[in-house]
Amino acid sequence: MQLRKVKIMGTGKYLPRQAVTDAQVDQRLGVKPGWAAKAGGVGTRYYVDKGETASTMGAAAAYSALEAAGLTFDDIDCLVCTSGTKEQPLPSTASFIQQAMGQEDSGIPAFDIDGTCLSFVFGLDTLSYLVAAGRYRYVLLVATEVASAGLDWSQKESAVLFGDGAAAVVIGPAAADESSAIIHTSLHTYSKGARYSEVAAGGTRFPHGHEQAAAPAYLFQMDGPAIFRMASRLLPEFIEDLLTQSRTVMNDFRMVIPHQGSAMAMRLMRRKLGIEEEQFMNITPNHGNTIAASIPMGLHEAIVQGRIRRGDRIMLLGTAAGLSLGGMVLDY
Amino acid sequence: MQLRKVKIMGTGKYLPRQAVTDAQVDQRLGVKPGWAAKAGGVGTRYYVDKGETASTMGAAAAYSALEAAGLTFDDIDCLVCTSGTKEQPLPSTASFIQQAMGQEDSGIPAFDIDGTCLSFVFGLDTLSYLVAAGRYRYVLLVATEVASAGLDWSQKESAVLFGDGAAAVVIGPAAADESSAIIHTSLHTYSKGARYSEVAAGGTRFPHGHEQAAAPAYLFQMDGPAIFRMASRLLPEFIEDLLTQSRTVMNDFRMVIPHQGSAMAMRLMRRKLGIEEEQFMNITPNHGNTIAASIPMGLHEAIVQGRIRRGDRIMLLGTAAGLSLGGMVLDY
Repeated sequence: MQLRKVKIMGTGKYLPRQAVTDAQVDQRLGVKPGWAAKAGGVGTRYYVDKGETASTMGAAAAYSALEAAGLTFDDIDCLVCTSGTKEQPLPSTASFIQQAMGQEDSGIPAFDIDGTCLSFVFGLDTLSYLVAAGRYRYVLLVATEVASAGLDWSQKESAVLFGDGAAAVVIGPAAADESSAIIHTSLHTYSKGARYSEVAAGGTRFPHGHEQAAAPAYLFQMDGPAIFRMASRLLPEFIEDLLTQSRTVMNDFRMVIPHQGSAMAMRLMRRKLGIEEEQFMNITPNHGNTIAASIPMGLHEAIVQGRIRRGDRIMLLGTAAGLSLGGMVLDY
Repeated sequence: MQLRKVKIMGTGKYLPRQAVTDAQVDQRLGVKPGWAAKAGGVGTRYYVDKGETASTMGAAAAYSALEAAGLTFDDIDCLVCTSGTKEQPLPSTASFIQQAMGQEDSGIPAFDIDGTCLSFVFGLDTLSYLVAAGRYRYVLLVATEVASAGLDWSQKESAVLFGDGAAAVVIGPAAADESSAIIHTSLHTYSKGARYSEVAAGGTRFPHGHEQAAAPAYLFQMDGPAIFRMASRLLPEFIEDLLTQSRTVMNDFRMVIPHQGSAMAMRLMRRKLGIEEEQFMNITPNHGNTIAASIPMGLHEAIVQGRIRRGDRIMLLGTAAGLSLGGMVLDY
């Protein structure tokens, strides 16, 4: 166990203005009505509209999280963007979030942590040590994604899954008499699966205009079955180890908050891992897969829907491109 | 002070195969012979050749650092890529480094920390808390950059400055009887300067092929004078605070290891901050500005050239796109 007396102070969420229904997706994909509903189970996802960017969404979610925490920006000692995509290749998205929050003279350190869909779990795990050590009192973590900017509409099975949006979480120290704590985190990366989902071009390997990069290389490509096979093989032992190391059993958890990869993968994972349906936070309907914003959005929804209360034990759980597996046991 | 008993165990460096002299740069820029030498003070920088990528360079530097530390990959508990650019937009460059190291089944958690040119300082500062807390014993930090992939050759004043390359550092716990420690870090981000240096297109704001993004928007653009003005205004107080908080004076430092932004900016900064020439690690000649690899490369060179020894007090110092200022006081 790696107990840290760190507390989720408040959470926030922002969904962009443009609602996109399954019927609209069917039309865009040129498939028969009902295909998207059956393939994705999303119903409605949201895409950025004119003027909405990763940083403006992130700023809105961040202010909601601050309000929920009863804090203001002045209380924040560090701002970390935990997204799987970037607003610009350079500089960090965290800088743009700070700017979009109207805090461009604040001097608050701002940087990005990227573990793809698990960026928030990597970020929360990592920064919790700085809070526990007293280096920073309150840290603002923001995951904000414009998935719609990188969808390949010729890959309809993956295009149907994604939505845009942002979620933010403020963490701070838990008092000695509070039960809030991070109990244990387990993170693993198996780069054998590094190319199972990727955006191949647009970085330094294949820069913009590279002769070896055709247009689809700049878009998100996913080998869903390969990811599913690898995750299915690794997850049972991963979860068993996480439970052993955190001295918990699945029944101890009020909620498991999974990455909303896809409705189908989540359903199969839930059954395979022996998680009851009422323990399993499913926000895929009305959100879709919002990349790294997915887990903190699920956490936010679990809180605002009253499905978790202070002191409840919860698990954050997911897989990510990399291929990474991540799980965190915490007492909210 | 925020003392952490964390030690630099070993460092490594990799320069790519293609040496590019000032004369070659003059030719490429179509300027008269001698221009590059005068404008950049680099002499020779290195660009990636066929088959060399950020991850292959990072892997080579990482193995050198492990060897210097007397460790093997099996000793490593976490791999963090601390670059300011990415090999691909998705997934993390750390995954590709793990793969390039031939460790794709290792399961070692791998993620990226991005604070542009200060990514290594952000990463070292952050991960040192996890080492100090015993969460991870040895952490491998790798900064690897292919600056040449994003240069705008019509901006000759900035194109002349950059080089490619990688540096890696292994950190671990310092024993009670060892003097090695991180004494204090100061990091600030003022996003008022977020656009003073940037790659505007190729992220989610202006995705590949966006109608508002002309070709130069996919390349690195820098307003050098604006950065210099902002940094000059902020640095004196920043340094004064860092010295006060770490209870040091400039004379205590065996070496100050600066980000190698440009020879001219470094010279002016050194004088303004009252740093003696022999205290100031200058690796711009033969390296150029290697973005986030610049500071760990300077650290590596200071060690291998015997300019710092165990127990010596040193300072890492730099500015970064964001605009961020960073300084770390440590006892090597």
